[in-house]
Order: sequence, then C-alpha cells, then structure tokens
Amino acid sequence: MFLAATDREAAVELDRSDPLRGFRDRFVFADDEVIYLDGNSLGRLPADTLAQVNEVTRDGWGTRLIRAWSEGWLELPLRIGDRLGESLLGAAPGQVAVADSTTVCFYKLASAALAARPGRNEIITDRDNFPTDRYVLEGLAAQRGVTIRWITADPVTGPEPDQVAALLGPRTALVSLSHVAYRSAFVLDMPEITRLAHDAGALTLWDLCHSAGVLPVTLDASGVDLAVGCTYKYLNGGPGAPAFLYVRAEHQGRLQQPIWGWLGTRDPFEMVQGYQPADGIAAMLSGTPPVLALTAVSAGAELVIEAGAAPIREKAIALTEFAIALADEWLVPRGVTVGSPRDGTSRGAHVALVHPEARRLCQLLIDEGVIVDFRPPDAIRLGLSPLTTSFADVWDGLRHLRHLTESRL
Amino acid sequence: MFLAATDREAAVELDRSDPLRGFRDRFVFADDEVIYLDGNSLGRLPADTLAQVNEVTRDGWGTRLIRAWSEGWLELPLRIGDRLGESLLGAAPGQVAVADSTTVCFYKLASAALAARPGRNEIITDRDNFPTDRYVLEGLAAQRGVTIRWITADPVTGPEPDQVAALLGPRTALVSLSHVAYRSAFVLDMPEITRLAHDAGALTLWDLCHSAGVLPVTLDASGVDLAVGCTYKYLNGGPGAPAFLYVRAEHQGRLQQPIWGWLGTRDPFEMVQGYQPADGIAAMLSGTPPVLALTAVSAGAELVIEAGAAPIREKAIALTEFAIALADEWLVPRGVTVGSPRDGTSRGAHVALVHPEARRLCQLLIDEGVIVDFRPPDAIRLGLSPLTTSFADVWDGLRHLRHLTESRL
Repeated sequence: MFLAATDREAAVELDRSDPLRGFRDRFVFADDEVIYLDGNSLGRLPADTLAQVNEVTRDGWGTRLIRAWSEGWLELPLRIGDRLGESLLGAAPGQVAVADSTTVCFYKLASAALAARPGRNEIITDRDNFPTDRYVLEGLAAQRGVTIRWITADPVTGPEPDQVAALLGPRTALVSLSHVAYRSAFVLDMPEITRLAHDAGALTLWDLCHSAGVLPVTLDASGVDLAVGCTYKYLNGGPGAPAFLYVRAEHQGRLQQPIWGWLGTRDPFEMVQGYQPADGIAAMLSGTPPVLALTAVSAGAELVIEAGAAPIREKAIALTEFAIALADEWLVPRGVTVGSPRDGTSRGAHVALVHPEARRLCQLLIDEGVIVDFRPPDAIRLGLSPLTTSFADVWDGLRHLRHLTESRL
Repeated sequence: MFLAATDREAAVELDRSDPLRGFRDRFVFADDEVIYLDGNSLGRLPADTLAQVNEVTRDGWGTRLIRAWSEGWLELPLRIGDRLGESLLGAAPGQVAVADSTTVCFYKLASAALAARPGRNEIITDRDNFPTDRYVLEGLAAQRGVTIRWITADPVTGPEPDQVAALLGPRTALVSLSHVAYRSAFVLDMPEITRLAHDAGALTLWDLCHSAGVLPVTLDASGVDLAVGCTYKYLNGGPGAPAFLYVRAEHQGRLQQPIWGWLGTRDPFEMVQGYQPADGIAAMLSGTPPVLALTAVSAGAELVIEAGAAPIREKAIALTEFAIALADEWLVPRGVTVGSPRDGTSRGAHVALVHPEARRLCQLLIDEGVIVDFRPPDAIRLGLSPLTTSFADVWDGLRHLRHLTESRL
C-alpha cells in the first residue's frame, strides 16, 4: 500500500476504510478549514463540548447556583478521574483525580514523593524531558537540597531502561520521565523502568501528556506509583484544561501533597480547626473545582472512551507510518530527517521531522494554513490525533512541506 | 427610613431609587427564581459571560485552534490581572495575575514569603481565618519547621491591629489575614496591620476573597506585599474560577514562588535547559492558562468595573444595614444575634445571623427557596451582592426566616 503513498488516492482510500472516520463529524470544523496537524498541542473542539459547557453555564451556574455544588459539582474531580482511570489509564477506581494544571499536579506529586523518601537526595530525569517537568524538578531540587541526575539519551530512541539503571542507587528518591517523549514520540518502557526504580527503592512519577487518550496506558499493571497528564491534547479538553493525577492505592494516606487546601479535607464545609486530609485520592485536591473546565474535559474524554483505545492506537500507528513514508519519499532527499522511531510500537501519535531550518519552515507552513508545531532546536512536529486527523490531512500537509523545501530552502 | 423597614414598601422604594438597579438585568435569572442571598459564595451568571464563553469556545478554540495562543490567549493572565488591579484593587499595572485556584495562589505566595525571610520562623494568622488559608499555612509550617502564632479574636470585631502587634517580633516572617472576615464580614485594618508587620521586618499576605469587587481595596497605597483573591464571588467569574495574585513591584524578581512551571519562564516556547523565571509578575505563573475560565472571569469583572467601586460600596452598606434593621425587628427578639459589625464602614457585603439552630434553619430556608450559607458552628450567612441583590430580596428572605423562627423553633 505504501508504495503508492505519494498518490493522493492512497490517502483517500485509507480514510474511506478508516473505522474511526465517523468521529470527525463529532468535532467543530470551520468553513475555511486549515490542515490541522497539531492535535497533540491542542485537541479539537468536540461539538458536544459546546453544548455541555453551555448547559452547565446556563442551567447549572445560572439557575441552580450554589445548590449545584451538592448536586454533582463537588464530585466532578473524582468522577471524571475514575472514568479516565478505568477507560484509558489502566487504573482501578479511586486513584485518579482531575485538578489544577499539569504543572501544579506534577509539583504536588514530585514533592510528595521526595517527602516520602527522606533519606534519599537524588532525582533521575531526562535532559529531553518536557520543560515544565524539568523546571519543577529543578525548583524542588533547589528548595530541598536534592540533586538531579540527568539522563542524556538518544533524541530519537531514548531514554532506555539501561540509562536509568546506570544512575539508580540507594540515594535515588524519584525517577520521573515522560511516557511518550514530547519531541520524538518515543515510547519509554514504563513497566521496566518502574521495576528498576522499585528495585532500587525509588518511586516513579510518569508524565502521560503525550500518551493519555492515544496509547493504551497500564498504570496499575505497570506498578506505577504516581502519574500526571494533560487533558487538552488527545483528550480534547480545551485550552488550558485541568490535568489529571494518579496516586497508586497503596501510597494513598502515606504520601502527602504539599498544598493543604480545604477541598482536600474530610469535610470541607465543616471548616474545622486543623487540616484533616480526606481519605483516598481526594487528599490530593486543594482548591475549588473549576466546573466549566471540568465539564469540557468530561465531554472530550467521553468521545475518546467511546472510540476505544485499540482502534485509536491502530490508527495512530497507521497515520504516523503514512507520514513517515511520505517524508521518506518527499523530504529525506531534501535534507529532512525523521526524528521519530520507525518502529510503530515505539512511537506515539506524533512525528518529528528534523531540519536546520525547521523554525522557518514551520512559520511558512502555518502561513499556508498547515498548522504544525516548531519544537526547538530543529523539529517540525506533526500531531496526528486519530479522531480528527485524516490521511488526506497528512498527505496535503506534507505536500505543502515538500513544496516549501523545493521553493524556499 | 428604617423605622418602616418592616413594611415591604420600604424595600420596594429602596430598589426604585437604587442607581445600580439596571445591572440586575445584565444577569441570568431563572423563571422560577429563588431568593438568592449567597452572592458571596457563588456570584450570579452575567448574560455576557454566556455569550463570551460561547464565542471563545466556538471561534477561538474551534476555529483559530492553536493559533489563538499567540493571538491573545497567552496574555490573558496578566491582561485581566491589570484590569482587576487598576480598577478594583488599587494596584498599578504589572503586579496582578489571574491563575490557578485561590488555594494554589495562596500557597505560592506564602511559600515565597517564608523563603524570603530565612532567619525567621513564625507566621501570624487568625483562628477564624478561612479554612484553606489556615490549612495551607499549617502545611507550610509542618514542611518548613515554622510555627504558627494564632490570634484568637472577637468573632464579630476582630482581629484588631493590637492583637497582631502583640504577637509580632523578630521571629515573624509573615502576617497573613483576610481583608474581610468570611463569617462576620469584619473589615480588618489592612494599612495599619501592614505597617505594624513592616516595622517588625515581616511580610504581609492578604486574602481578598470577601473584599475584591465589593470594597475599595488599596493595595499599593496600603503598602501590602502580597495578596490573593477569588473571582467567583463578587466578581461573578463562575464556579471554581481561577484566582488572582498580587506581588508588589518592589518584591518582584526577589521573591521566588515554588512551582517552577514553563509558563512562568522568559520564553516558554524556547524550551531551554534551566528554569529562567520571567521578568515581573509573570514569574508567578506555572501551567497553561485556562482560557475558557479566564474568559468568564473577564466578563464578570468588567460588569463590576463598569458599575464602579463607589456605588457598589454604598449599596453594600445599605443592603447590609437594611438586613440588620430587619433582623433587629424580627429576629433578635426570637434569640437570633447579629454576628456582623453594626458600623457599616467596618462591614463587608455580608451579614451573619447567629443562632444555635442555624444549621437547621439554613436547610429550611433553602427548602423554601431562600438560598443562604451555613457557616459552622452557628451562623446563617447572607451574601448581599450589590449588582444582583435587591432590597426586596433581603426583605423577602428575612421574612421567611422570621416565619421559620416562629413556626419551627
């Protein structure tokens, strides 16, 4: 089939036989539509979301007012958390909550992990980890007198378990990595790295931003201790939507997060003297739940759950394979390299195309209505969200890039 | 005039001559409307908000997609912060940002203040301070080896500056109090307490949740160091809306908040190695701004700004005075006491009515469609939001309470 990838009919045929093709109609598309290859930066707007946000605003806030808190609003963080956990993250109920931002959730859990390993003073992470993860860990390291041991891995196929193992030791408090690398889309070996960390007595904190909703995630089965993830990428939760956090059941009640807010207590409205953390995952909450934003998260996630993890994974592999096949034909001869793993099972749902002029090429693509992300220093990143990206989108977008490499380099 | 407060015509007349009466039509009211005396717990839904949230969802997220970040979204936290600062908080531009929840903002600033006073190990706060403030401070105290010095003040007219002064000393790192007490509505002497704290070399962190949007706040002129506040009460920002934080210009660049996220760096999208905090108030940001929620904050706040601080303050005093006059006539003879200051200038925009059976009375009121808050152990709290509460609402609500005290006690 990929022999004919450069023939647009190949893309049309792939779309025709795509079992998920119907989902595209459940999202809002503009009349003068762009070619959107950035669903891993901001997932598209589901049509249901518009309706549900309207409803919770008008009928909930506008009409039920304060009464709505006891009519379901207060349960939203854990209710949506359980839905994500059971359907997409491989987590039994009571271990996932939706709250805050990814950065704040990550801070809470990293801080809790360090406090739970008081005799240890090292964190292991990756130089290519997403900036907010690195920065939060640097902040905690500075505040707690902890050292970061940095992995410098192959930018396309790392980090590998061996590289983690080489840094692990009796001083390691925490290993924190991304499940799928934000630039290359490399899928890290979460179960093996977690096992190695546990053997050394360390805890693990996984960032699922680029895997939640697009890869099967098996938190419980992989032995993961802690995880966070974002809902505005493949879960289509909206710009700046709240994040989710996971705390393995066995750690609940032992790990304590640092931001002791009233919504994380046993009975917030009793307003007692002295912080009494809630039982279970609720102790990870701090402030008042953002109801409008949580409603959008729920609407977006339900679409993903309805589509199902297996068909989504299958299409993600097919879309990225198609993009790489086109890149090999059209772009590699012109100096572009593929900055993502060529083995589909080791690759998330995006593809990095590397070129020294990537920054300029990205701007030119966007000017032509092909929306991609530039990722410093030299990657054009194509996010191929299976529910909303067609094979024709990939073909059209890459043809634009081919023309740019021919005319503007 | 208040001689006739018990005559409903008095309320009707007050509404007729209310210069803010037109604002009520700018909010969404249900057909079977309740008597809503809880605008200090969740402010009502402005009609504009529905339209603007719809627009940013459909046209921003749905159509502009990722491009909207560089078309204004990234500036929302500081742009809305400046609007709040200049119009409602007495803060020159560049000192206010809208982000996270009140609890998270409070944690960031309290943590930053403690780090800025390394030789000092005491925090002063109030036993009657709002729970989330107390709990966050307790958490930080436990984590940093700091002691809390608790003020136990008169529940109606405290804390007073003398009580703060009595605890201040060379060990005091931070004085953290609420500008308006969440139960009694007592207005603390912010300038004087701030002055006393500074004389002792301590920093101040003020919680403006019950004053922002309803009292003139003069952060710059009062010498305040740090402040946080909520936008879902008198600013009508929506359930769980993001909070605002204020860092006095002279402290910026010196105080460092603990959650080092990518959106608080100089150039988030360069994704450099090593956290480099942004200049100015932006360094207080952590995660990706919640665009839908910020849009609702902006719409709600603009209504308050349009109405103006002076007329709002005047009406707040009149509404609460009217409520107290009715309570004196109808409820005090039946064992209710007024748990708020009788001097209007010392009182925010809510009134606490105290009775041993307050919990049961609140539930009975809500069952009858009079929405109030119970605040343990014994207060019925009436929040009288000047843009949406009429004098007739106050009259009708208190008449229900009068009947309940006659029939159910």
